[in-house]
Amino acid sequence: MNTAQKLLVDVHTHVYLPRYAQLLRSRTTAPRILTRLSGPDNKPEERLVILDNEPSGGRPVGAQYWDRDEKLAFMDKHGIDISIVSSANPWLDFLPASTARSLANELNDDLESYCSTSPIIAETRRKRLYGFGLLPLVPEITTESLLDTVQQIAALPHLKGIIMGTRGVGKGLDDEALDPVWAAIEKAGLVVFLHPHYGVDSKQWGEKDNGHVLPLALGFPFETTIATTRLILSGVFDRFPALRMLLAHSGGALPQLSSRLASCIDHDPVVASRLKHDARYYLGRLYYDAVAYGSAELRFVSDVIARSDSYSSTAASADSHVAPKLGSAQMMWGTDHPFFPPLSNTEKWKSVVENLDAITGVKEWTQEEKDGVRGGNALSLFNL
Amino acid sequence: MNTAQKLLVDVHTHVYLPRYAQLLRSRTTAPRILTRLSGPDNKPEERLVILDNEPSGGRPVGAQYWDRDEKLAFMDKHGIDISIVSSANPWLDFLPASTARSLANELNDDLESYCSTSPIIAETRRKRLYGFGLLPLVPEITTESLLDTVQQIAALPHLKGIIMGTRGVGKGLDDEALDPVWAAIEKAGLVVFLHPHYGVDSKQWGEKDNGHVLPLALGFPFETTIATTRLILSGVFDRFPALRMLLAHSGGALPQLSSRLASCIDHDPVVASRLKHDARYYLGRLYYDAVAYGSAELRFVSDVIARSDSYSSTAASADSHVAPKLGSAQMMWGTDHPFFPPLSNTEKWKSVVENLDAITGVKEWTQEEKDGVRGGNALSLFNL
Repeated sequence: MNTAQKLLVDVHTHVYLPRYAQLLRSRTTAPRILTRLSGPDNKPEERLVILDNEPSGGRPVGAQYWDRDEKLAFMDKHGIDISIVSSANPWLDFLPASTARSLANELNDDLESYCSTSPIIAETRRKRLYGFGLLPLVPEITTESLLDTVQQIAALPHLKGIIMGTRGVGKGLDDEALDPVWAAIEKAGLVVFLHPHYGVDSKQWGEKDNGHVLPLALGFPFETTIATTRLILSGVFDRFPALRMLLAHSGGALPQLSSRLASCIDHDPVVASRLKHDARYYLGRLYYDAVAYGSAELRFVSDVIARSDSYSSTAASADSHVAPKLGSAQMMWGTDHPFFPPLSNTEKWKSVVENLDAITGVKEWTQEEKDGVRGGNALSLFNL
Repeated sequence: MNTAQKLLVDVHTHVYLPRYAQLLRSRTTAPRILTRLSGPDNKPEERLVILDNEPSGGRPVGAQYWDRDEKLAFMDKHGIDISIVSSANPWLDFLPASTARSLANELNDDLESYCSTSPIIAETRRKRLYGFGLLPLVPEITTESLLDTVQQIAALPHLKGIIMGTRGVGKGLDDEALDPVWAAIEKAGLVVFLHPHYGVDSKQWGEKDNGHVLPLALGFPFETTIATTRLILSGVFDRFPALRMLLAHSGGALPQLSSRLASCIDHDPVVASRLKHDARYYLGRLYYDAVAYGSAELRFVSDVIARSDSYSSTAASADSHVAPKLGSAQMMWGTDHPFFPPLSNTEKWKSVVENLDAITGVKEWTQEEKDGVRGGNALSLFNL
């Protein structure tokens, strides 16, 4: 094993680029950054409010959300060699089409510069920062604008993929209007990073004050699960077999619900004959961050990937001697930085340590598999 | 191992008792049973519509939904020795308090008679049918009505628990108004079977016609996950440590999201100090049906139960040599009959075979553990 394969790579780490943070400061409705006086000495504090009716009046934000030096300092502190940085939600979702298009182009250029001027890891000649670009995925955008922006991103050498929410151009990601976009992304070899923002209807959370726990712990992964399931049901993965998609938060609830999903499809006359394969096959076509905070969860996701080939419509019983897929090879570590800051001063961030310990704790993975999840798999997927 | 431990027991099997089906036929809004003309020869067909705007105009229903002979014939066909039958959703949720109270009492008596007059399994002297009763959990019901109905159920010898939706008396199950009810159920030793009905806001499913797949495959387990998480966050399991709760559909997405939940709690000042234990501890306090349709899913749920003791606040590192819980001992087989009928004529129902094969396929379980999940664990939990 060479040094490169032992790098620690963070595929789930966010930034609000300065140009974007300025836009949020100029707004009077969510998403916005507001300043309020706080604490015993009434110090001004910036708070980020990304959803209407957000619990706890949003959350405190500071330089770690936009300053590149803070990102690099965080990486140094935790031994992270490379970060593949993505804009944080809600991206451009709230903007009119004209603004979204121009801002996407500017932010993609900003992120390319953020990455291209980052330090080099001497022995590998790799940069420390790479990025996911943005598409202006908003209602009334033209397909041409989307395709032009895919081309812009593909031409920026440090951008290796596209981060994407779940709304598409207003009707979700199972909208056929997006087929030319999937085709262009597939052709360009960019990785789609599917990430939640909206959760589900907040009435579900009840009247008690549980802070951000329910929307973050449940709403976020539910949204990713719904979006991915709708993509499967719409046949996107049948039509674009080489499209590479990375799911945030280890695919949310999709792995645990995937056999139920397959059974529900089999029992429903509307969809029973629609797809090429059993629903579980498609889970093996996807990539998963390892942001699940527990070893049992990670091991389970790798099992669900590993079994997927047996659910191909072309899987013959004669194939049963074929070795299953190595599930862990499609999983890769992330931190969700700068979210989940520790509540008290700690040497290292608990969320970072938890997600590393989760990998270490998977008894069924070899050391080589663990090294892959820590970094090698990301180097392969993003062709770094 | 004696014969009793080898019985096949179905803990997740539903009935619309004749009295309840008649009520549904009398209604003009959902939930209702309507008759429409169908097929080339315009034959009248009864259809069950349980939600407003239900996809595909509801589903066809027939005698298997209410006729006890059909239940017993289904059991015979599939080798099921004992079924613990529960009323199907939406129970009494849509009724005014006065009607709900009297109907709950009548339906509990009906179900007792349905079970008490069922055949005896000769060598064990057990009946073939037991049941979950109903509480009139609707807004404006008095606590006294609820407590009286708990006592009614506790006094009916063939009713072993209570099936319950997620709305409580209007504010969900984390409502302190329910504390006397939990206390009474705990004291009576009845098992709560937590079952979904509402899913999440159907706007999430988009505009495409995917039949019932999204609300059933995702919405149902999401609802159970939310309700159980809210119960954990409200401290119900801290206040009622002997309360026994069985989660439908293997706990939905809760096992896969439980480490994320624990991390979100740890990182949120509103809730970080509220609970006695790490969130993952409480998952080991719960029981899970094995209605997950896949072996990897079942094995994962048993892992999540097994690890739970290590998340007790009193778990010392000195305890690390203590054997973990046997996770499978808190899991038990179910069919969800009469839902998920096969689309074509088959010898046995696919959903039944899938859930049995899922148990057989868990390589990490011993034969004794598999026998437990197939029946022995239910005999213990329900003290049959």
